[in-house]
Amino acid sequence: MELKSYLEECRLKIDAALDLYLPADDTLPQRLHQAIRYSMFAGGKRVRPILMMAACQAVGGEMARVVPAACAMEMIHTYSLIHDDLPAMDDDDFRRGRSTCHKVYGDALAILAGDALLTEAFQLLSAPVDGQEIPGEISRRVIHIIARCAGSMGMVGGQVVDMESEGRNIDLPTLEYIHTRKTGALILASVQAGALLGGADQKAFDALSKYAEAAGLAFQIADDILDIVGDQALLGKDVGSDVARGKATFPALLGLEVAKQRAGELRDMAVDALADFDDRADPLREIACYIIDRSF
Amino acid sequence: MELKSYLEECRLKIDAALDLYLPADDTLPQRLHQAIRYSMFAGGKRVRPILMMAACQAVGGEMARVVPAACAMEMIHTYSLIHDDLPAMDDDDFRRGRSTCHKVYGDALAILAGDALLTEAFQLLSAPVDGQEIPGEISRRVIHIIARCAGSMGMVGGQVVDMESEGRNIDLPTLEYIHTRKTGALILASVQAGALLGGADQKAFDALSKYAEAAGLAFQIADDILDIVGDQALLGKDVGSDVARGKATFPALLGLEVAKQRAGELRDMAVDALADFDDRADPLREIACYIIDRSF
Repeated sequence: MELKSYLEECRLKIDAALDLYLPADDTLPQRLHQAIRYSMFAGGKRVRPILMMAACQAVGGEMARVVPAACAMEMIHTYSLIHDDLPAMDDDDFRRGRSTCHKVYGDALAILAGDALLTEAFQLLSAPVDGQEIPGEISRRVIHIIARCAGSMGMVGGQVVDMESEGRNIDLPTLEYIHTRKTGALILASVQAGALLGGADQKAFDALSKYAEAAGLAFQIADDILDIVGDQALLGKDVGSDVARGKATFPALLGLEVAKQRAGELRDMAVDALADFDDRADPLREIACYIIDRSF
Repeated sequence: MELKSYLEECRLKIDAALDLYLPADDTLPQRLHQAIRYSMFAGGKRVRPILMMAACQAVGGEMARVVPAACAMEMIHTYSLIHDDLPAMDDDDFRRGRSTCHKVYGDALAILAGDALLTEAFQLLSAPVDGQEIPGEISRRVIHIIARCAGSMGMVGGQVVDMESEGRNIDLPTLEYIHTRKTGALILASVQAGALLGGADQKAFDALSKYAEAAGLAFQIADDILDIVGDQALLGKDVGSDVARGKATFPALLGLEVAKQRAGELRDMAVDALADFDDRADPLREIACYIIDRSF
Protein backbone atom coordinates (compact mmCIF):
# COMPACT_ATOMS: atom_id res chain seq x y z
CA MET A 1 0.00 0.00 0.00
CA GLU A 2 1.21 3.47 -0.72
CA LEU A 3 2.26 5.45 2.34
CA LYS A 4 -0.27 8.19 1.70
CA SER A 5 -3.23 5.84 1.75
CA TYR A 6 -1.79 4.04 4.78
CA LEU A 7 -1.55 7.33 6.67
CA GLU A 8 -5.03 8.28 5.55
CA GLU A 9 -6.49 4.94 6.62
CA CYS A 10 -4.90 5.22 10.07
CA ARG A 11 -6.02 8.81 10.44
CA LEU A 12 -9.62 7.94 9.66
CA LYS A 13 -9.56 5.09 12.18
CA ILE A 14 -8.22 7.42 14.87
CA ASP A 15 -10.71 10.17 14.07
CA ALA A 16 -13.62 7.72 14.23
CA ALA A 17 -12.38 6.27 17.52
CA LEU A 18 -11.82 9.72 19.03
CA ASP A 19 -15.36 10.66 18.09
CA LEU A 20 -16.53 7.56 19.95
CA TYR A 21 -14.38 8.03 23.04
CA LEU A 22 -14.79 11.76 23.60
CA PRO A 23 -17.93 12.87 25.44
CA ALA A 24 -20.51 14.34 23.05
CA ASP A 25 -20.86 18.10 22.56
CA ASP A 26 -24.02 18.17 24.64
CA THR A 27 -22.54 16.36 27.65
CA LEU A 28 -22.51 18.56 30.75
CA PRO A 29 -20.62 20.85 31.10
CA GLN A 30 -21.34 21.52 27.44
CA ARG A 31 -18.89 24.33 26.77
CA LEU A 32 -16.05 22.26 28.21
CA HIS A 33 -16.82 19.34 25.94
CA GLN A 34 -17.30 21.67 22.98
CA ALA A 35 -13.88 23.21 23.64
CA ILE A 36 -12.34 19.75 23.89
CA ARG A 37 -13.86 18.63 20.60
CA TYR A 38 -13.01 21.94 18.91
CA SER A 39 -9.34 21.33 19.60
CA MET A 40 -9.33 17.58 19.06
CA PHE A 41 -10.88 17.92 15.60
CA ALA A 42 -8.80 20.83 14.35
CA GLY A 43 -7.16 18.98 11.50
CA GLY A 44 -4.38 17.16 13.34
CA LYS A 45 -2.28 14.77 11.25
CA ARG A 46 -2.39 12.14 14.06
CA VAL A 47 1.35 11.51 13.74
CA ARG A 48 1.71 9.95 17.20
CA PRO A 49 -1.27 7.61 16.92
CA ILE A 50 -0.11 6.49 13.49
CA LEU A 51 3.38 5.76 14.82
CA MET A 52 1.83 3.71 17.63
CA MET A 53 -0.27 1.73 15.17
CA ALA A 54 2.69 1.18 12.85
CA ALA A 55 4.91 0.03 15.73
CA CYS A 56 2.27 -2.45 16.87
CA GLN A 57 1.99 -3.75 13.33
CA ALA A 58 5.77 -4.01 12.98
CA VAL A 59 5.88 -6.59 15.78
CA GLY A 60 2.90 -8.49 14.37
CA GLY A 61 0.25 -7.09 16.72
CA GLU A 62 -3.40 -6.43 15.88
CA MET A 63 -3.85 -2.75 15.08
CA ALA A 64 -7.20 -2.63 16.91
CA ARG A 65 -5.39 -3.32 20.18
CA VAL A 66 -3.66 0.05 20.15
CA VAL A 67 -6.50 2.28 19.02
CA PRO A 68 -7.56 3.40 22.54
CA ALA A 69 -3.96 4.10 23.57
CA ALA A 70 -3.33 5.87 20.27
CA CYS A 71 -6.34 8.12 20.92
CA ALA A 72 -5.07 8.79 24.44
CA MET A 73 -1.73 9.86 23.00
CA GLU A 74 -3.45 12.31 20.66
CA MET A 75 -5.37 13.74 23.63
CA ILE A 76 -2.09 14.35 25.46
CA HIS A 77 -0.58 15.97 22.37
CA THR A 78 -3.66 18.18 21.95
CA TYR A 79 -3.75 19.25 25.61
CA SER A 80 -0.12 20.34 25.26
CA LEU A 81 -0.97 22.44 22.19
CA ILE A 82 -3.93 24.10 23.96
CA HIS A 83 -1.77 25.05 26.94
CA ASP A 84 1.22 26.09 24.77
CA ASP A 85 -1.00 28.50 22.83
CA LEU A 86 -2.23 30.33 25.96
CA PRO A 87 -1.37 34.02 26.36
CA ALA A 88 0.78 33.16 29.39
CA MET A 89 2.79 30.78 27.21
CA ASP A 90 3.35 31.22 23.43
CA ASP A 91 0.30 33.50 23.00
CA ASP A 92 -0.75 32.10 19.63
CA ASP A 93 -4.04 33.17 18.06
CA PHE A 94 -4.01 30.64 15.26
CA ARG A 95 -3.07 27.02 14.80
CA ARG A 96 -3.53 25.05 11.62
CA GLY A 97 -5.34 28.07 10.21
CA ARG A 98 -8.04 28.12 12.93
CA SER A 99 -8.43 30.26 16.02
CA THR A 100 -6.80 28.63 19.02
CA CYS A 101 -8.93 27.19 21.82
CA HIS A 102 -8.52 30.13 24.19
CA LYS A 103 -9.41 32.64 21.46
CA VAL A 104 -12.76 30.91 21.02
CA TYR A 105 -13.55 29.73 24.55
CA GLY A 106 -11.49 32.02 26.79
CA ASP A 107 -8.34 31.37 28.77
CA ALA A 108 -9.98 29.70 31.77
CA LEU A 109 -11.88 27.17 29.72
CA ALA A 110 -8.82 26.47 27.58
CA ILE A 111 -6.78 25.69 30.70
CA LEU A 112 -9.54 23.38 31.93
CA ALA A 113 -10.05 21.75 28.52
CA GLY A 114 -6.34 20.92 28.50
CA ASP A 115 -6.52 19.55 32.04
CA ALA A 116 -9.55 17.47 31.13
CA LEU A 117 -7.90 16.05 28.01
CA LEU A 118 -4.79 15.00 29.91
CA THR A 119 -6.96 13.31 32.52
CA GLU A 120 -9.21 11.74 29.88
CA ALA A 121 -6.14 10.20 28.26
CA PHE A 122 -5.37 8.25 31.43
CA GLN A 123 -9.01 7.31 31.84
CA LEU A 124 -8.93 5.82 28.35
CA LEU A 125 -5.57 4.13 28.92
CA SER A 126 -6.95 2.41 32.00
CA ALA A 127 -10.38 1.55 30.61
CA PRO A 128 -11.37 -2.05 30.16
CA VAL A 129 -11.40 -2.71 26.43
CA ASP A 130 -14.20 -4.81 24.94
CA GLY A 131 -12.97 -7.92 23.25
CA GLN A 132 -9.32 -7.00 23.72
CA GLU A 133 -7.52 -9.08 26.26
CA ILE A 134 -4.86 -6.64 27.38
CA PRO A 135 -3.36 -7.90 30.64
CA GLY A 136 -3.43 -5.40 33.51
CA GLU A 137 0.35 -5.57 33.77
CA ILE A 138 0.77 -4.46 30.14
CA SER A 139 -1.69 -1.59 30.66
CA ARG A 140 0.25 -0.55 33.74
CA ARG A 141 3.54 -0.48 31.84
CA VAL A 142 2.04 1.44 28.92
CA ILE A 143 0.58 4.04 31.27
CA HIS A 144 3.91 4.35 33.04
CA ILE A 145 5.85 4.91 29.82
CA ILE A 146 3.39 7.50 28.57
CA ALA A 147 3.21 9.38 31.89
CA ARG A 148 6.99 9.46 32.19
CA CYS A 149 7.45 10.77 28.67
CA ALA A 150 4.73 13.42 29.11
CA GLY A 151 5.87 14.67 32.52
CA SER A 152 8.34 17.02 34.16
CA MET A 153 11.37 15.21 32.78
CA GLY A 154 9.72 14.64 29.41
CA MET A 155 7.39 16.85 27.37
CA VAL A 156 6.57 19.37 30.10
CA GLY A 157 10.25 19.65 31.00
CA GLY A 158 11.11 20.32 27.36
CA GLN A 159 8.48 23.02 27.17
CA VAL A 160 9.88 24.71 30.29
CA VAL A 161 13.43 24.81 28.92
CA ASP A 162 12.13 25.97 25.53
CA MET A 163 10.32 28.83 27.25
CA GLU A 164 13.33 29.75 29.36
CA SER A 165 15.53 29.75 26.25
CA GLU A 166 13.41 32.10 24.17
CA GLY A 167 15.38 35.10 22.95
CA ARG A 168 18.61 33.69 24.39
CA ASN A 169 21.56 32.15 22.64
CA ILE A 170 21.55 28.45 23.39
CA ASP A 171 23.94 25.74 22.37
CA LEU A 172 23.27 22.52 20.46
CA PRO A 173 23.05 20.27 23.56
CA THR A 174 20.37 22.55 25.04
CA LEU A 175 18.45 22.55 21.75
CA GLU A 176 18.63 18.76 21.64
CA TYR A 177 17.53 18.63 25.29
CA ILE A 178 14.47 20.68 24.38
CA HIS A 179 13.51 18.69 21.33
CA THR A 180 14.15 15.19 22.62
CA ARG A 181 11.68 16.11 25.34
CA LYS A 182 9.20 18.57 23.87
CA THR A 183 8.52 16.58 20.69
CA GLY A 184 10.69 13.49 20.96
CA ALA A 185 9.33 12.13 24.23
CA LEU A 186 5.75 11.61 23.00
CA ILE A 187 7.02 10.07 19.77
CA LEU A 188 9.16 7.66 21.78
CA ALA A 189 6.25 6.85 24.08
CA SER A 190 3.96 6.25 21.09
CA VAL A 191 6.32 3.76 19.49
CA GLN A 192 7.14 2.04 22.79
CA ALA A 193 3.44 1.75 23.71
CA GLY A 194 2.67 0.33 20.28
CA ALA A 195 5.49 -2.18 20.66
CA LEU A 196 4.33 -3.32 24.11
CA LEU A 197 0.68 -3.59 23.13
CA GLY A 198 1.68 -5.46 19.99
CA GLY A 199 3.55 -8.04 22.06
CA ALA A 200 7.16 -7.04 21.34
CA ASP A 201 9.96 -8.92 23.08
CA GLN A 202 12.77 -6.94 24.72
CA LYS A 203 14.96 -6.96 21.61
CA ALA A 204 12.22 -5.62 19.35
CA PHE A 205 11.24 -3.09 22.00
CA ASP A 206 14.81 -1.78 22.17
CA ALA A 207 15.16 -1.60 18.38
CA LEU A 208 11.89 0.28 18.06
CA SER A 209 12.98 2.66 20.81
CA LYS A 210 16.13 3.46 18.81
CA TYR A 211 13.99 4.00 15.73
CA ALA A 212 11.73 6.40 17.65
CA GLU A 213 14.56 8.42 19.14
CA ALA A 214 16.18 8.99 15.76
CA ALA A 215 12.92 9.60 13.91
CA GLY A 216 11.69 11.97 16.62
CA LEU A 217 14.73 14.21 16.41
CA ALA A 218 14.67 14.04 12.60
CA PHE A 219 11.05 15.14 12.72
CA GLN A 220 11.93 18.22 14.75
CA ILE A 221 14.89 19.19 12.57
CA ALA A 222 12.67 18.80 9.51
CA ASP A 223 10.09 21.04 11.20
CA ASP A 224 12.73 23.69 11.83
CA ILE A 225 13.83 23.48 8.20
CA LEU A 226 10.23 23.78 7.03
CA ASP A 227 9.81 26.86 9.19
CA ILE A 228 12.47 28.49 7.01
CA VAL A 229 11.89 27.07 3.57
CA GLY A 230 8.34 25.73 3.77
CA ASP A 231 5.23 27.25 2.34
CA GLN A 232 2.64 28.70 4.64
CA ALA A 233 -0.33 26.75 3.31
CA LEU A 234 1.44 23.48 4.09
CA LEU A 235 2.30 24.49 7.63
CA GLY A 236 -0.79 26.42 8.67
CA LYS A 237 1.43 28.87 10.50
CA ASP A 238 3.59 31.77 9.49
CA VAL A 239 6.81 30.79 7.76
CA GLY A 240 9.76 32.03 9.75
CA SER A 241 7.65 32.40 12.92
CA ASP A 242 10.16 30.49 15.05
CA VAL A 243 12.94 32.78 13.93
CA ALA A 244 10.82 35.89 14.44
CA ARG A 245 10.05 34.76 17.96
CA GLY A 246 13.74 34.33 18.78
CA LYS A 247 13.46 30.56 19.09
CA ALA A 248 16.64 28.65 18.52
CA THR A 249 16.39 26.17 15.66
CA PHE A 250 18.70 23.54 14.21
CA PRO A 251 19.25 25.44 10.93
CA ALA A 252 20.04 28.59 12.92
CA LEU A 253 22.64 26.75 15.00
CA LEU A 254 24.05 24.42 12.35
CA GLY A 255 23.32 26.20 9.10
CA LEU A 256 20.67 24.94 6.68
CA GLU A 257 22.87 22.46 4.82
CA VAL A 258 24.33 20.82 7.94
CA ALA A 259 20.84 20.64 9.45
CA LYS A 260 19.58 18.83 6.34
CA GLN A 261 22.53 16.47 6.50
CA ARG A 262 21.91 15.74 10.18
CA ALA A 263 18.23 15.03 9.47
CA GLY A 264 19.29 12.62 6.73
CA GLU A 265 21.67 10.80 9.06
CA LEU A 266 18.95 10.45 11.68
CA ARG A 267 16.58 9.04 9.05
CA ASP A 268 19.20 6.44 8.15
CA MET A 269 19.70 5.59 11.83
CA ALA A 270 15.95 5.12 12.20
CA VAL A 271 15.75 2.84 9.20
CA ASP A 272 18.86 0.89 10.26
CA ALA A 273 17.32 0.23 13.68
CA LEU A 274 14.66 -1.83 11.90
CA ALA A 275 17.15 -4.09 10.10
CA ASP A 276 15.87 -7.27 11.80
CA PHE A 277 12.20 -6.53 11.08
CA ASP A 278 10.27 -7.94 8.12
CA ASP A 279 8.05 -6.04 5.71
CA ARG A 280 5.45 -5.41 8.40
CA ALA A 281 7.81 -2.61 9.49
CA ASP A 282 7.66 -0.97 6.05
CA PRO A 283 5.23 1.74 7.16
CA LEU A 284 7.66 2.76 9.92
CA ARG A 285 10.53 2.81 7.40
CA GLU A 286 8.53 4.89 4.93
CA ILE A 287 7.37 7.29 7.64
CA ALA A 288 10.99 7.96 8.62
CA CYS A 289 11.81 8.83 5.02
CA TYR A 290 8.64 10.88 4.55
CA ILE A 291 9.38 12.96 7.66
CA ILE A 292 12.62 14.14 6.11
CA ASP A 293 11.70 14.30 2.47
CA ARG A 294 8.81 16.70 3.01
CA SER A 295 11.35 19.29 4.16
CA PHE A 296 13.82 18.86 1.28
CA MET B 1 -5.56 6.40 69.26
CA GLU B 2 -6.88 9.91 69.33
CA LEU B 3 -7.99 11.27 65.98
CA LYS B 4 -5.55 14.16 66.10
CA SER B 5 -2.50 11.96 66.49
CA TYR B 6 -3.86 9.57 63.84
CA LEU B 7 -4.22 12.44 61.37
CA GLU B 8 -0.78 13.72 62.28
CA GLU B 9 0.80 10.29 61.85
CA CYS B 10 -0.77 9.86 58.41
CA ARG B 11 0.21 13.36 57.37
CA LEU B 12 3.84 12.79 58.30
CA LYS B 13 3.90 9.52 56.35
CA ILE B 14 2.49 11.24 53.29
CA ASP B 15 4.86 14.19 53.53
CA ALA B 16 7.85 11.87 53.83
CA ALA B 17 6.69 9.79 50.87
CA LEU B 18 6.01 12.87 48.74
CA ASP B 19 9.50 14.09 49.48
CA LEU B 20 10.80 10.76 48.25
CA TYR B 21 8.64 10.54 45.12
CA LEU B 22 8.91 14.13 43.86
CA PRO B 23 12.01 14.99 41.84
CA ALA B 24 14.55 16.98 43.90
CA ASP B 25 14.74 20.77 43.68
CA ASP B 26 17.92 20.57 41.59
CA THR B 27 16.51 18.17 38.98
CA LEU B 28 16.40 19.74 35.52
CA PRO B 29 14.43 21.86 34.76
CA GLN B 30 15.11 23.22 38.23
CA ARG B 31 12.56 26.03 38.38
CA LEU B 32 9.81 23.62 37.36
CA HIS B 33 10.68 21.20 40.13
CA GLN B 34 11.06 24.05 42.59
CA ALA B 35 7.58 25.33 41.68
CA ILE B 36 6.18 21.82 42.09
CA ARG B 37 7.73 21.39 45.52
CA TYR B 38 6.75 24.92 46.56
CA SER B 39 3.10 24.06 46.01
CA MET B 40 3.24 20.48 47.25
CA PHE B 41 4.76 21.52 50.59
CA ALA B 42 2.57 24.52 51.27
CA GLY B 43 0.98 23.19 54.42
CA GLY B 44 -1.73 20.97 52.96
CA LYS B 45 -3.75 18.92 55.45
CA ARG B 46 -3.52 15.81 53.22
CA VAL B 47 -7.25 15.12 53.66
CA ARG B 48 -7.54 12.94 50.56
CA PRO B 49 -4.46 10.79 51.25
CA ILE B 50 -5.60 10.29 54.84
CA LEU B 51 -9.05 9.19 53.66
CA MET B 52 -7.41 6.71 51.30
CA MET B 53 -5.25 5.30 54.07
CA ALA B 54 -8.20 5.10 56.47
CA ALA B 55 -10.37 3.34 53.85
CA CYS B 56 -7.61 0.80 53.20
CA GLN B 57 -7.30 0.20 56.92
CA ALA B 58 -11.09 -0.14 57.32
CA VAL B 59 -11.08 -3.20 55.05
CA GLY B 60 -8.04 -4.68 56.78
CA GLY B 61 -5.43 -3.65 54.22
CA GLU B 62 -1.81 -2.72 54.90
CA MET B 63 -1.50 1.06 54.99
CA ALA B 64 1.85 0.97 53.17
CA ARG B 65 0.07 -0.40 50.10
CA VAL B 66 -1.78 2.86 49.48
CA VAL B 67 0.97 5.37 50.16
CA PRO B 68 2.00 5.85 46.49
CA ALA B 69 -1.63 6.20 45.36
CA ALA B 70 -2.33 8.54 48.28
CA CYS B 71 0.59 10.74 47.21
CA ALA B 72 -0.69 10.69 43.63
CA MET B 73 -4.08 11.89 44.85
CA GLU B 74 -2.46 14.79 46.69
CA MET B 75 -0.57 15.71 43.50
CA ILE B 76 -3.87 15.84 41.59
CA HIS B 77 -5.44 17.95 44.33
CA THR B 78 -2.45 20.32 44.32
CA TYR B 79 -2.39 20.68 40.52
CA SER B 80 -6.06 21.69 40.67
CA LEU B 81 -5.30 24.35 43.28
CA ILE B 82 -2.40 25.76 41.24
CA HIS B 83 -4.58 26.06 38.13
CA ASP B 84 -7.61 27.37 40.09
CA ASP B 85 -5.50 30.19 41.53
CA LEU B 86 -4.32 31.44 38.10
CA PRO B 87 -5.31 34.95 37.01
CA ALA B 88 -7.42 33.47 34.21
CA MET B 89 -9.35 31.46 36.81
CA ASP B 90 -9.93 32.59 40.43
CA ASP B 91 -6.98 35.01 40.42
CA ASP B 92 -5.89 34.31 43.99
CA ASP B 93 -2.64 35.79 45.32
CA PHE B 94 -2.58 33.82 48.55
CA ARG B 95 -3.39 30.31 49.68
CA ARG B 96 -2.87 29.00 53.19
CA GLY B 97 -1.16 32.30 54.00
CA ARG B 98 1.52 31.95 51.30
CA SER B 99 1.85 33.47 47.87
CA THR B 100 0.29 31.25 45.22
CA CYS B 101 2.49 29.40 42.74
CA HIS B 102 1.98 31.81 39.85
CA LYS B 103 2.76 34.82 42.06
CA VAL B 104 6.17 33.33 42.80
CA TYR B 105 7.01 31.53 39.55
CA GLY B 106 4.88 33.30 36.95
CA ASP B 107 1.76 32.16 35.13
CA ALA B 108 3.47 30.02 32.49
CA LEU B 109 5.46 27.99 34.96
CA ALA B 110 2.42 27.60 37.21
CA ILE B 111 0.42 26.16 34.30
CA LEU B 112 3.26 23.77 33.51
CA ALA B 113 3.82 22.83 37.17
CA GLY B 114 0.15 21.88 37.37
CA ASP B 115 0.39 19.89 34.14
CA ALA B 116 3.49 18.12 35.41
CA LEU B 117 1.89 17.24 38.75
CA LEU B 118 -1.18 15.76 37.10
CA THR B 119 1.07 13.69 34.85
CA GLU B 120 3.37 12.72 37.73
CA ALA B 121 0.36 11.39 39.61
CA PHE B 122 -0.34 8.85 36.87
CA GLN B 123 3.34 7.99 36.63
CA LEU B 124 3.31 7.18 40.33
CA LEU B 125 0.02 5.28 40.10
CA SER B 126 1.48 3.08 37.39
CA ALA B 127 4.94 2.63 38.91
CA PRO B 128 6.07 -0.80 40.02
CA VAL B 129 6.11 -0.73 43.82
CA ASP B 130 8.98 -2.41 45.65
CA GLY B 131 7.85 -5.19 47.91
CA GLN B 132 4.16 -4.50 47.27
CA GLU B 133 2.45 -7.11 45.18
CA ILE B 134 -0.30 -5.02 43.63
CA PRO B 135 -1.73 -6.92 40.67
CA GLY B 136 -1.73 -5.00 37.39
CA GLU B 137 -5.50 -5.36 37.16
CA ILE B 138 -5.99 -3.60 40.52
CA SER B 139 -3.63 -0.80 39.47
CA ARG B 140 -5.60 -0.42 36.27
CA ARG B 141 -8.90 -0.13 38.13
CA VAL B 142 -7.48 2.36 40.63
CA ILE B 143 -6.11 4.53 37.83
CA HIS B 144 -9.45 4.38 36.04
CA ILE B 145 -11.42 5.46 39.10
CA ILE B 146 -9.06 8.33 39.84
CA ALA B 147 -8.94 9.56 36.23
CA ARG B 148 -12.73 9.45 35.92
CA CYS B 149 -13.24 11.38 39.15
CA ALA B 150 -10.63 13.99 38.22
CA GLY B 151 -11.80 14.53 34.64
CA SER B 152 -14.35 16.44 32.58
CA MET B 153 -17.32 14.81 34.28
CA GLY B 154 -15.65 14.95 37.70
CA MET B 155 -13.43 17.58 39.28
CA VAL B 156 -12.69 19.58 36.12
CA GLY B 157 -16.38 19.56 35.19
CA GLY B 158 -17.28 20.85 38.64
CA GLN B 159 -14.75 23.64 38.31
CA VAL B 160 -16.20 24.66 34.94
CA VAL B 161 -19.76 24.89 36.27
CA ASP B 162 -18.52 26.70 39.38
CA MET B 163 -16.80 29.26 37.15
CA GLU B 164 -19.84 29.65 34.91
CA SER B 165 -22.04 30.16 37.97
CA GLU B 166 -20.03 32.95 39.55
CA GLY B 167 -22.11 36.04 40.18
CA ARG B 168 -25.28 34.25 39.04
CA ASN B 169 -28.18 32.95 41.06
CA ILE B 170 -28.02 29.18 41.02
CA ASP B 171 -30.32 26.61 42.55
CA LEU B 172 -29.55 23.85 45.01
CA PRO B 173 -29.22 21.06 42.39
CA THR B 174 -26.62 23.12 40.52
CA LEU B 175 -24.72 23.82 43.73
CA GLU B 176 -24.77 20.11 44.56
CA TYR B 177 -23.63 19.34 40.99
CA ILE B 178 -20.66 21.65 41.50
CA HIS B 179 -19.64 20.30 44.87
CA THR B 180 -20.15 16.60 44.27
CA ARG B 181 -17.67 17.08 41.42
CA LYS B 182 -15.31 19.86 42.40
CA THR B 183 -14.58 18.53 45.89
CA GLY B 184 -16.62 15.35 46.21
CA ALA B 185 -15.19 13.47 43.25
CA LEU B 186 -11.62 13.32 44.54
CA ILE B 187 -12.83 12.36 48.02
CA LEU B 188 -14.88 9.55 46.50
CA ALA B 189 -11.92 8.43 44.38
CA SER B 190 -9.62 8.48 47.42
CA VAL B 191 -11.90 6.25 49.47
CA GLN B 192 -12.63 3.90 46.55
CA ALA B 193 -8.93 3.59 45.70
CA GLY B 194 -8.12 2.87 49.34
CA ALA B 195 -10.84 0.23 49.43
CA LEU B 196 -9.63 -1.49 46.26
CA LEU B 197 -5.97 -1.43 47.26
CA GLY B 198 -6.92 -2.72 50.70
CA GLY B 199 -8.67 -5.70 49.15
CA ALA B 200 -12.32 -4.72 49.68
CA ASP B 201 -15.05 -7.00 48.34
CA GLN B 202 -17.92 -5.47 46.36
CA LYS B 203 -20.13 -4.99 49.42
CA ALA B 204 -17.44 -3.16 51.39
CA PHE B 205 -16.55 -1.13 48.29
CA ASP B 206 -20.16 -0.01 47.90
CA ALA B 207 -20.53 0.86 51.59
CA LEU B 208 -17.34 2.89 51.54
CA SER B 209 -18.51 4.67 48.39
CA LYS B 210 -21.70 5.71 50.20
CA TYR B 211 -19.58 6.90 53.12
CA ALA B 212 -17.42 8.99 50.80
CA GLU B 213 -20.32 10.59 48.94
CA ALA B 214 -21.98 11.70 52.17
CA ALA B 215 -18.75 12.79 53.86
CA GLY B 216 -17.58 14.64 50.75
CA LEU B 217 -20.71 16.76 50.53
CA ALA B 218 -20.67 17.33 54.30
CA PHE B 219 -17.08 18.51 53.97
CA GLN B 220 -18.08 21.10 51.39
CA ILE B 221 -21.08 22.37 53.37
CA ALA B 222 -18.86 22.64 56.43
CA ASP B 223 -16.35 24.62 54.35
CA ASP B 224 -19.09 27.00 53.22
CA ILE B 225 -20.18 27.45 56.83
CA LEU B 226 -16.60 28.09 57.94
CA ASP B 227 -16.29 30.72 55.22
CA ILE B 228 -19.02 32.64 57.04
CA VAL B 229 -18.40 31.90 60.69
CA GLY B 230 -14.79 30.67 60.74
CA ASP B 231 -11.77 32.55 61.85
CA GLN B 232 -9.22 33.61 59.29
CA ALA B 233 -6.19 32.09 60.97
CA LEU B 234 -7.81 28.68 60.84
CA LEU B 235 -8.70 28.95 57.16
CA GLY B 236 -5.69 30.75 55.76
CA LYS B 237 -7.98 32.71 53.49
CA ASP B 238 -10.24 35.68 53.95
CA VAL B 239 -13.42 34.96 55.86
CA GLY B 240 -16.40 35.71 53.67
CA SER B 241 -14.30 35.53 50.49
CA ASP B 242 -16.74 33.17 48.76
CA VAL B 243 -19.61 35.54 49.45
CA ALA B 244 -17.59 38.57 48.35
CA ARG B 245 -16.78 36.80 45.09
CA GLY B 246 -20.44 36.10 44.42
CA LYS B 247 -20.03 32.35 44.81
CA ALA B 248 -23.16 30.46 45.74
CA THR B 249 -22.82 28.57 49.02
CA PHE B 250 -25.04 26.19 50.94
CA PRO B 251 -25.67 28.63 53.81
CA ALA B 252 -26.57 31.33 51.27
CA LEU B 253 -29.10 29.06 49.59
CA LEU B 254 -30.43 27.22 52.63
CA GLY B 255 -29.76 29.60 55.48
CA LEU B 256 -27.09 28.92 58.08
CA GLU B 257 -29.19 26.74 60.38
CA VAL B 258 -30.58 24.50 57.64
CA ALA B 259 -27.08 24.16 56.18
CA LYS B 260 -25.77 23.02 59.56
CA GLN B 261 -28.63 20.56 59.88
CA ARG B 262 -27.95 19.17 56.39
CA ALA B 263 -24.26 18.75 57.21
CA GLY B 264 -25.25 16.87 60.36
CA GLU B 265 -27.55 14.55 58.41
CA LEU B 266 -24.80 13.80 55.91
CA ARG B 267 -22.39 13.02 58.76
CA ASP B 268 -24.93 10.54 60.13
CA MET B 269 -25.38 8.97 56.67
CA ALA B 270 -21.61 8.61 56.39
CA VAL B 271 -21.32 6.92 59.77
CA ASP B 272 -24.36 4.70 59.10
CA ALA B 273 -22.79 3.46 55.86
CA LEU B 274 -20.06 1.88 58.00
CA ALA B 275 -22.47 -0.09 60.20
CA ASP B 276 -21.07 -3.49 59.12
CA PHE B 277 -17.42 -2.50 59.68
CA ASP B 278 -15.46 -3.27 62.86
CA ASP B 279 -13.33 -0.86 64.84
CA ARG B 280 -10.75 -0.64 62.09
CA ALA B 281 -13.20 1.81 60.50
CA ASP B 282 -13.13 4.07 63.55
CA PRO B 283 -10.78 6.62 61.95
CA LEU B 284 -13.25 7.00 59.07
CA ARG B 285 -16.11 7.43 61.53
CA GLU B 286 -14.21 10.00 63.55
CA ILE B 287 -13.14 11.90 60.45
CA ALA B 288 -16.77 12.24 59.35
CA CYS B 289 -17.63 13.74 62.74
CA TYR B 290 -14.56 15.95 62.79
CA ILE B 291 -15.36 17.37 59.36
CA ILE B 292 -18.65 18.71 60.65
CA ASP B 293 -17.74 19.60 64.18
CA ARG B 294 -14.96 21.96 63.18
CA SER B 295 -17.60 24.18 61.58
CA PHE B 296 -20.04 24.20 64.50
